[in-house]
Amino acid sequence: MSKAITSQKQDYSKWYNDIVVEADLADHSAVRGCMVIKPHGYAIWEKMQQTLDKMFKDTGHVNAYFPLLIPKSFFSKEASHVDGFAKECAVVTHYRLKNDGAGNIIVDDNAKLEEELIIRPTSETIIWNTYKGWIQSYRDLPLLINQWANVLRWEMRTRLFLRTAEFLWQEGHTAHATSEEAIKETEQMLDVYADFVENWMAVPVIKGIKSPNERFAGAIETYCIEALMQDGKALQCGTSHFLGQNFAKAFDVKFATKEGNQEFVWATSWGVSTRLMGALIMSHSDDHGLVIPPKLAPTQVVIVPIYKGEEGLKKVSETALQIVSKLKAKGISVKYDDRDSQRPGFKFAEHELKGTPVRIAIGERDLANGTLEVARRDSGVKQTIKVDEVESFVSQLLDDIQKSLYDNAKTRLNASTHKADSYEELKKILDEKGGFVSAHWDGTSETEEKIKEETKATIRCIPLNNKQEEGKCIYTGKISKQRVLFARAY
Amino acid sequence: MSKAITSQKQDYSKWYNDIVVEADLADHSAVRGCMVIKPHGYAIWEKMQQTLDKMFKDTGHVNAYFPLLIPKSFFSKEASHVDGFAKECAVVTHYRLKNDGAGNIIVDDNAKLEEELIIRPTSETIIWNTYKGWIQSYRDLPLLINQWANVLRWEMRTRLFLRTAEFLWQEGHTAHATSEEAIKETEQMLDVYADFVENWMAVPVIKGIKSPNERFAGAIETYCIEALMQDGKALQCGTSHFLGQNFAKAFDVKFATKEGNQEFVWATSWGVSTRLMGALIMSHSDDHGLVIPPKLAPTQVVIVPIYKGEEGLKKVSETALQIVSKLKAKGISVKYDDRDSQRPGFKFAEHELKGTPVRIAIGERDLANGTLEVARRDSGVKQTIKVDEVESFVSQLLDDIQKSLYDNAKTRLNASTHKADSYEELKKILDEKGGFVSAHWDGTSETEEKIKEETKATIRCIPLNNKQEEGKCIYTGKISKQRVLFARAY
Repeated sequence: MSKAITSQKQDYSKWYNDIVVEADLADHSAVRGCMVIKPHGYAIWEKMQQTLDKMFKDTGHVNAYFPLLIPKSFFSKEASHVDGFAKECAVVTHYRLKNDGAGNIIVDDNAKLEEELIIRPTSETIIWNTYKGWIQSYRDLPLLINQWANVLRWEMRTRLFLRTAEFLWQEGHTAHATSEEAIKETEQMLDVYADFVENWMAVPVIKGIKSPNERFAGAIETYCIEALMQDGKALQCGTSHFLGQNFAKAFDVKFATKEGNQEFVWATSWGVSTRLMGALIMSHSDDHGLVIPPKLAPTQVVIVPIYKGEEGLKKVSETALQIVSKLKAKGISVKYDDRDSQRPGFKFAEHELKGTPVRIAIGERDLANGTLEVARRDSGVKQTIKVDEVESFVSQLLDDIQKSLYDNAKTRLNASTHKADSYEELKKILDEKGGFVSAHWDGTSETEEKIKEETKATIRCIPLNNKQEEGKCIYTGKISKQRVLFARAY
Repeated sequence: MSKAITSQKQDYSKWYNDIVVEADLADHSAVRGCMVIKPHGYAIWEKMQQTLDKMFKDTGHVNAYFPLLIPKSFFSKEASHVDGFAKECAVVTHYRLKNDGAGNIIVDDNAKLEEELIIRPTSETIIWNTYKGWIQSYRDLPLLINQWANVLRWEMRTRLFLRTAEFLWQEGHTAHATSEEAIKETEQMLDVYADFVENWMAVPVIKGIKSPNERFAGAIETYCIEALMQDGKALQCGTSHFLGQNFAKAFDVKFATKEGNQEFVWATSWGVSTRLMGALIMSHSDDHGLVIPPKLAPTQVVIVPIYKGEEGLKKVSETALQIVSKLKAKGISVKYDDRDSQRPGFKFAEHELKGTPVRIAIGERDLANGTLEVARRDSGVKQTIKVDEVESFVSQLLDDIQKSLYDNAKTRLNASTHKADSYEELKKILDEKGGFVSAHWDGTSETEEKIKEETKATIRCIPLNNKQEEGKCIYTGKISKQRVLFARAY
């Protein structure tokens, strides 16, 4: 089965696409740039959603739902926001089809909208237009709302999960009485994202803020978490924006303070998307297929029986089903793959391809010895253990795999973070090693753009609590007070 | 607070709208026909989703996600399907906005799509186009997939939850090797819906099949569950369609049988939507506000302290928080409303309006007696009980409320189901009592349409296991073999 997968070395990009399609995560659809998320991929996304949703609720947020369509005029109210998104907006202009009389279905020109509607690329505008009706006084604040939704950004070059026209995400939109409180919220949600990506996805990240060029359209400050993929390219995993009073001003959302003054409301927004699936895949998977961290695996353990004939299966099943219920009682999700239509070898390959963290094989001979074979997906290491130690062994093993995936990714991140003290050095590292390059920059957009143009590397972030040190911009030689992280990125 | 609510007697329709808005369930948005689902409404919808999702998974289904946009040509492939939906399709024609140079944001005419895209009103076409690539042989069947999604149907007259342009729903789409298996699936999902609506929403339903006029566009048979609202109007709560081979033929989806023949695949689809929120509200709520069945209440119990001064609150809180943890340990969701900014009377009214099933009040005097006051939202009945019996009492009370809501609705349904043996009688019942009217019908679409035109009543369903009896159509006098259920409906 894994023969269908191109090796990473041969063509990383093709390897990625093969994994996504062959492991049944997603597929291209007939609609340009839109993907179909297949059941196995969706099951992982559901685990991500559930985990994040709980984290959002634990930090005081509630969910709500706002319209898919946004009037064009709303969209235009915040100037830099519309500038940022105008080029990728799908526009609804009509609301009816009709039969043209010759048997063809055509758009009914009599059903043209007076004002065009935009499919949301993000929801700040429609939400702040709604908040205007919800916020009158300081008593209505803070408003801590999240939405799980689909959004659409018309992308010219798309890649499954990483860059698709339609994608699934959550977008938090909060309203606050003070700037301080809004900034605290922005930082809190960045921490929530970092916690999730590191401790559930097992992907280490660097927290930082974006340079003005890379800021969200309409934000005062964009915080982000950046991860490094196996091929040395960076991937932005989540962003949290401090929006200041920009959207409150655009939609005239004021509140009465305790003292009775009218002030504009402070805002944040933050989001992660199905893009995280891409980060998950490109952090841990290998030439045999997908590798899923146990905490996000829809099935953590698969048990494959090795037997001859019906009688053999019956014997093995007895023990297997006992193990199933023991593991389930420990909160471990386990599947007994007793399909008689497929041979063990086929099942091994399939579960390897789909990334099940632990595989248990039980044969008739094992029964006699009271043993079974446990194989871990990440390292491929197999071990024979006693049947009666299976619960504690597997439980510990899942923790070990989770930790080991993180540790390996962390080691790679550390080994792939370099310093460059000249422009030549930057280019050399990018071309030869990839990874993050820490270098001095003069702080101007012009320099950033030129470096991007010439090297395809962007400033991924200015790390939080960044060390301040005197230096010279590697491109212009101008004075710089800190290094920033450059990388080529997805 | 409940002063904001029009009484049911005065104007049922206005009462409904007041409940939806005042209890913070949903609100109209700035986009024609699209609603904002507010946090309290969304929390109830989430409980519905979780429950249904588990029921779907327990019956072997998995979730996936298909594109929001459907090419117009796909949409036209199944003739009756496009006929049914063409008039309510939102059409995307462009994929970019631009600045016109004079500072206005306009649609970029250079970014016109070659083929228009439809926002899904339902997803049979895009899904069956996808299934073509997923199904080759009988080994790939059955395919049991569900999708949670937003859909859009351009409605001219909209009402919050009941009929909105955009709504949230789930749509199951399954593929089978035989007609029998597909019909069994259709019936199974109808049972799942009936189970959910009756046992979680506490709304009794009648299961039946639709007359050809009311069938889903593209279905061979549409099964439905119908409920009766407090005002005597019917509401369709869910539908499950046996699609035959219609979509397989439209998208050329064949499979190799065990015997090696090529056959078209058999299909079902089934869905429930945020419309269920409307059924929930109109089954149980009253002039004081929303009434939520305990099994779907985001907060089942609220505890309100009655106290004077900080010291008083401290004392009451000690006992209150003990009760909170005791109830939580029993799996009951409970909220301690110790806001010092609001008086108990305000809190009572607010929780009544929002439908919290059980309210506990604890005052300083209660502490001395070791008692507290428990009030149930549905009947308003209050009882003083001992603090140490609170867990078992509340636990039992929640069950009682759930049962009582169902029983009351069932009594109403029975009392509102009438027989009519003449057209005059049908009209009289519809005008004077409302409810379901069981009457003979000659089985033709013409008769059904005339009755609808003249009385605004439609055939809600032909009940499953319907009693067969000779009779005469109340409209044409022609021979009929069974009665069907007429009603005016939402």
